[in-house]
Amino acid sequence: MSLITLTTDFGTKDHFVGAVKGAIYSELSDARIVDISHQISPFNITQTAYILKNAYKNFPTGSIHIVGVDSELSVENKHIALFLDEHYFICPDNGIISLIASEIKPEKMVEITIHNAVVSSFNVLDIFVKVACHIARGGTLEVIGKRISDHKQLTEVYPFINDEKNQIIGSVIYIDNYGNVISNITKKLFQQIGKGRSFEVEARSYKFDKIFQKYNEGIDYETPIENRQDDGKKLAIFNSANYLEIAIYKSNLKTVGGASTLLGLKYRDSITVRFF
Amino acid sequence: MSLITLTTDFGTKDHFVGAVKGAIYSELSDARIVDISHQISPFNITQTAYILKNAYKNFPTGSIHIVGVDSELSVENKHIALFLDEHYFICPDNGIISLIASEIKPEKMVEITIHNAVVSSFNVLDIFVKVACHIARGGTLEVIGKRISDHKQLTEVYPFINDEKNQIIGSVIYIDNYGNVISNITKKLFQQIGKGRSFEVEARSYKFDKIFQKYNEGIDYETPIENRQDDGKKLAIFNSANYLEIAIYKSNLKTVGGASTLLGLKYRDSITVRFF
Amino acid sequence: MSLITLTTDFGTKDHFVGAVKGAIYSELSDARIVDISHQISPFNITQTAYILKNAYKNFPTGSIHIVGVDSELSVENKHIALFLDEHYFICPDNGIISLIASEIKPEKMVEITIHNAVVSSFNVLDIFVKVACHIARGGTLEVIGKRISDHKQLTEVYPFINDEKNQIIGSVIYIDNYGNVISNITKKLFQQIGKGRSFEVEARSYKFDKIFQKYNEGIDYETPIENRQDDGKKLAIFNSANYLEIAIYKSNLKTVGGASTLLGLKYRDSITVRFF
Repeated sequence: MSLITLTTDFGTKDHFVGAVKGAIYSELSDARIVDISHQISPFNITQTAYILKNAYKNFPTGSIHIVGVDSELSVENKHIALFLDEHYFICPDNGIISLIASEIKPEKMVEITIHNAVVSSFNVLDIFVKVACHIARGGTLEVIGKRISDHKQLTEVYPFINDEKNQIIGSVIYIDNYGNVISNITKKLFQQIGKGRSFEVEARSYKFDKIFQKYNEGIDYETPIENRQDDGKKLAIFNSANYLEIAIYKSNLKTVGGASTLLGLKYRDSITVRFF
Repeated sequence: MSLITLTTDFGTKDHFVGAVKGAIYSELSDARIVDISHQISPFNITQTAYILKNAYKNFPTGSIHIVGVDSELSVENKHIALFLDEHYFICPDNGIISLIASEIKPEKMVEITIHNAVVSSFNVLDIFVKVACHIARGGTLEVIGKRISDHKQLTEVYPFINDEKNQIIGSVIYIDNYGNVISNITKKLFQQIGKGRSFEVEARSYKFDKIFQKYNEGIDYETPIENRQDDGKKLAIFNSANYLEIAIYKSNLKTVGGASTLLGLKYRDSITVRFF
Repeated sequence: MSLITLTTDFGTKDHFVGAVKGAIYSELSDARIVDISHQISPFNITQTAYILKNAYKNFPTGSIHIVGVDSELSVENKHIALFLDEHYFICPDNGIISLIASEIKPEKMVEITIHNAVVSSFNVLDIFVKVACHIARGGTLEVIGKRISDHKQLTEVYPFINDEKNQIIGSVIYIDNYGNVISNITKKLFQQIGKGRSFEVEARSYKFDKIFQKYNEGIDYETPIENRQDDGKKLAIFNSANYLEIAIYKSNLKTVGGASTLLGLKYRDSITVRFF
């Protein structure tokens, strides 16, 4: 039994996701299909890279991940399939895979070459499903593509480190369901550059000299609950994906607001760490 | 193992979808349940018809499609079950099936008659699930209903053709996740009426004399990428469902806008093709 | 084969739901995972309690329900697992379970004690998945926790009954996908207090002296359809979950509006029944 995941910007209203699942079940009646996300902001490759990186590694090895974001074939946007960290990925060559592949080298990578003469505007259905089912049946990547050694890089997902090595200049790459603002600064990079020094995180005019591991770490449970004013407290945290995040304790975008709305932090805004 | 799909206007927040799935698994522990959509605009039959038509045909033959949109039973809104194109459909008789049934005649159709005395406001759970499980277990339609030969028609989904046969006057029946605007004019009808003549598509004050097959077909890949201004380009396309669509290249309703917002096209607005 | 359901406030855009599913499949390759809801308003325990109560009972006995809303571990927010009405629940001890447990006593309840030294900000992934898989493999609750006899109560979900027993003062606990406004007054309580007397339901300045069983019960099907003005009609109904609900016939929050917007009824507003 094969496990196939879907990560797309299709939304969940249209027939697109249903059509793709139907096509997979038509080829592989015992497939297990899992939605990672269909709510990616249309054509947003950085969001896709972040979501995919943090979801895929929880799946069993051998899982096949279809990524359908900005996947229309063109001379500048090839389709690729790769085997990396014991997982298969089928995606456009637009940088989506680079967040994962920058840490773990692909073991095998091909440019998909099974496109026939028929022009398609729904490549996930017409091409990616076929490739996924081929792999699920035990087929090799060489049969559906030609070996390549490079893929496109996504540049904006990496922070800048100054020459003195006392500053990491990152940026917002993702805003989550709670409005929490996620930077491209990983805990690993932070430790590597910081080497245990004191630091200050700056996001707009807000400063943080502590980075938490849990959202409720700053709550003083000794104070009687009726005297606490912790909801809405802002904090810096290494989130569960090990990225530096600016969060609001118990935030809700639809009621009290979240870090993104309350602190005015948007996608691509800079977040800086200074060590001293 | 039976494959049962769900197409509803329940949304995904409430307990409705979970309740229906729980009830199916309680009757058929090895069922495979696939969501087609739960985000249909409440009571919108045209949207449902469009989504269902484009999703169902990708599923394996023998699949059972439950459609729960405007499904409360009344003297004017019967429940029907049908076998059509090797698929089963369970739905209210409110026109939902007519987009499919206008192209492919139902092989068998019954009015569901298993409603007992108990009044229900959740017919999908109380009636449709029972019918689906009955069919999944190999039961016949005759056991749960009485044969009928007609179903309600949905009139607004068909475009008007003028007497001179040089004009198709269609309308917007659907707006997708990218804001693309989909008309009720199929490629088949276009070719049948147009017979290869020149044409002009008109949507509000916008005109198109070309209909693409891919969204990026109009992009000039010879021009260096930094000199191109293609994002936001408007185009007419026969979409992957073979309907005439007005689209914006790489649109995003939440950021740059889509065809619906940028061109001001709404559900039911007219889209006209003139041949000459 | 185990059936595991998920009820969270994670939303469906982020990697959270995918990560949890991946982790379950990694431990239990043949698990069946069903989403009840991921759209719960962040940290809203009352919504969660309502959705969970109305969904769980439709699932097969032996199902395992993971509830991830406000689940970060603290000295004030323990994790519990319980067996109740032949179902398993894994959730924080924040009152989420009290709507179910007020009607049906838990057969067994433990405080989860498998948290190791590692601090986690993603407890559903790091703790609840492990507990669910343990139960799914036939493990007992005693192995992963210590017996407890009490759980936290959610007070706002119960209506107030006056001393004369001729008034139920309830409040809005949920607003559904159609904008229908659901109170915390159950049909059972209504009948128990009302004992068949005449009554008046009051919600803001709106009054109802009838409670329907179906949304279309008030429609006069004798009147020709073109003369009817029923869409947008307001009504009181015992909904399919047997809660008193204020509804609008064929409402749609995005177009004509729903009871919540048209009647101005919000979460926690009072809804009163007077008997006479």
